[in-house]
Amino acid sequence: MTYLKSVLGCRETYFWHSHGFHDFRYQAYQDRTSAIEEPLDPFSLVSEELSVIVNRLKLMVVTEVPKLALATECFFRMGAQGKSFRAAVLLLMSKALPMPLPQITADGVFICLKELDARHKCIAETAEMIYVAGRLHDNVLDDAETNCGMGSLNTVMGNKLSVLAGDFLLSRAFVALANLKNTEVISLLAIVVEHLVSGETMQMTTSSEQRGSMEYYLQKTFYKTASLFANSCKAIAFLAGQTAEVELLAYNYGRNLGMAYQLIDDVLDFTGSSSSFGKGSLSDINKNIVTAPILFAMEEYPQLREVVDRGFGNRSDVELALDYLHKSRALDRTRELAAEYADEAVKAIEALPQSDDEDVIKSRRALVNLTRRVITGTK
Amino acid sequence: MTYLKSVLGCRETYFWHSHGFHDFRYQAYQDRTSAIEEPLDPFSLVSEELSVIVNRLKLMVVTEVPKLALATECFFRMGAQGKSFRAAVLLLMSKALPMPLPQITADGVFICLKELDARHKCIAETAEMIYVAGRLHDNVLDDAETNCGMGSLNTVMGNKLSVLAGDFLLSRAFVALANLKNTEVISLLAIVVEHLVSGETMQMTTSSEQRGSMEYYLQKTFYKTASLFANSCKAIAFLAGQTAEVELLAYNYGRNLGMAYQLIDDVLDFTGSSSSFGKGSLSDINKNIVTAPILFAMEEYPQLREVVDRGFGNRSDVELALDYLHKSRALDRTRELAAEYADEAVKAIEALPQSDDEDVIKSRRALVNLTRRVITGTK
Repeated sequence: MTYLKSVLGCRETYFWHSHGFHDFRYQAYQDRTSAIEEPLDPFSLVSEELSVIVNRLKLMVVTEVPKLALATECFFRMGAQGKSFRAAVLLLMSKALPMPLPQITADGVFICLKELDARHKCIAETAEMIYVAGRLHDNVLDDAETNCGMGSLNTVMGNKLSVLAGDFLLSRAFVALANLKNTEVISLLAIVVEHLVSGETMQMTTSSEQRGSMEYYLQKTFYKTASLFANSCKAIAFLAGQTAEVELLAYNYGRNLGMAYQLIDDVLDFTGSSSSFGKGSLSDINKNIVTAPILFAMEEYPQLREVVDRGFGNRSDVELALDYLHKSRALDRTRELAAEYADEAVKAIEALPQSDDEDVIKSRRALVNLTRRVITGTK
Repeated sequence: MTYLKSVLGCRETYFWHSHGFHDFRYQAYQDRTSAIEEPLDPFSLVSEELSVIVNRLKLMVVTEVPKLALATECFFRMGAQGKSFRAAVLLLMSKALPMPLPQITADGVFICLKELDARHKCIAETAEMIYVAGRLHDNVLDDAETNCGMGSLNTVMGNKLSVLAGDFLLSRAFVALANLKNTEVISLLAIVVEHLVSGETMQMTTSSEQRGSMEYYLQKTFYKTASLFANSCKAIAFLAGQTAEVELLAYNYGRNLGMAYQLIDDVLDFTGSSSSFGKGSLSDINKNIVTAPILFAMEEYPQLREVVDRGFGNRSDVELALDYLHKSRALDRTRELAAEYADEAVKAIEALPQSDDEDVIKSRRALVNLTRRVITGTK
């Protein structure tokens, strides 16, 4: 339950209304590796480093901009729930890669393993900063009434501080990245920020045709959610001097995990968590955002299209859409699609060069477990 | 008049109510160099490159995020006034430095002069992008009612697009900077963004003591305005492989020009332009922002302190403050302080290594003229 909170952000906990997975590879992987050790809490491997990162971030914001202290409260509410998930994935990826050889950079700087570890932590930290900055700015964008369980920051303190706190985190992220003296990595993370904006713009400004398109939805989801996982996992591999092939596997793990994560989040917006008695917050549909479950329902019931086109401006249209949704297989199909992405994420981990190092094996297993937990919500 | 518009942003034109300058070095410089050529419009040397930059920026925003097109309108209104000033300064600085030797970077990349020129244009472009992004986000922060002569973007389109358009420009700026493959330059511009946030935070959250402090005001002004000029001028010198001494001179020119620029802008907020019949928009005082003229007036009339502490929440307090201001030497003293900064800017240009290259001499003269125009508002 504690874990679920940390994975699934604001929606707290998660249970299945139904199951519809077949042939999900992580199970096979789990079976093969369980001989080594019992499944472990994927976060336990990095819990100490995670708490160091969260404390560093907290101290940074509180110390340097005291008046943004209230903003940090929201920041760390996110941290207790969805936020540290990204850092956890990146720290695990750092440990799951084959041990790199000591290397000399273009500047002739010798990078030792301890130094690499610090650089990886910096990526985990900046990925969190970019994520939270995006959330803070989304709050302004969406005029959301609730977020991170305490009312959105902007309803509490106005848009001013949301924008400012987001800008502060973004500028700090780029200063920290510049200090890594690696332009490839800076590029990867700058592209993430660009993607966050593209995703938000796509979400705000869809035509009727785009709103009905699964392809458009998936592209937007990549930009808004998966790109950060994908590109920061790639940055971890790049900094460790891995081959282009391993870089691509790291990217693919992040990309597919991110897509699965968002699809499940979209299901939860309709189904809610166990604590909400199976009722979702419906925040997407109430903000006229069309997600995968509605798109699958439209495939089964084309007459839903017209309701979608009207824009969910009145309650009866929302009810009508929910009726179609619940009599369709839309939620199961969304979960199945999430499971397919999760499957691809697991494949990427399986395809990493073999290693006998027990820490590496454990970390890979943790990444697989973590993928499974995103999908199934089991403890 | 056209020039003044472009220098002085939203306040269009500028004339002196009184003059109070002494010992202003640019005049001496002007006298020495006037033998070479008549004073020229400082912008004429770079007008072609400037229009290329403005068009590139316009095309980028319009093409890639069509729905931000309205945002671009504000963007280019700014461009027609205050915006291209930063790019002009940077393009002139690029031409004013001693000719660099062809150089080999840490990555073993050979940089030719044509390539350097393209890199300098990139700095000019990203400096503009960061400036406009800051303005767009300030609009949200300040809830400003008018800006760039068309109502602020957020009153026209809501906060959503202001935040989004600003984020888009910021992310694009960092992607472009990352492509320069120079982490020092990325660092300099990332620090500029950090300073913009620090300046805005300082402005929002002053204690009574801070509000009455000239030192605090000058620090805030450096962060909000001068840092961008200073650090991007330094980036120009750094990319050109100049010595640390020349880098510092470029930085000092930018820093002092930026301070002078902002002080004059603060005067204009009270005095207005010729077209406004000597009445300023009073936007600072109406937003309860204390600037240099009020601080100087407080020195002469300590009883103004109490009015300042009350926060200008009612009209009669604003009138009272204006009475004190106009019977004091505050506006002249602010102009004198601006002239001192302008003097330091000119000294930095004069201290550059001597050059016989006529283009270099012309460009330096243009930078000096431009400084003078900021201060005197002569055509």
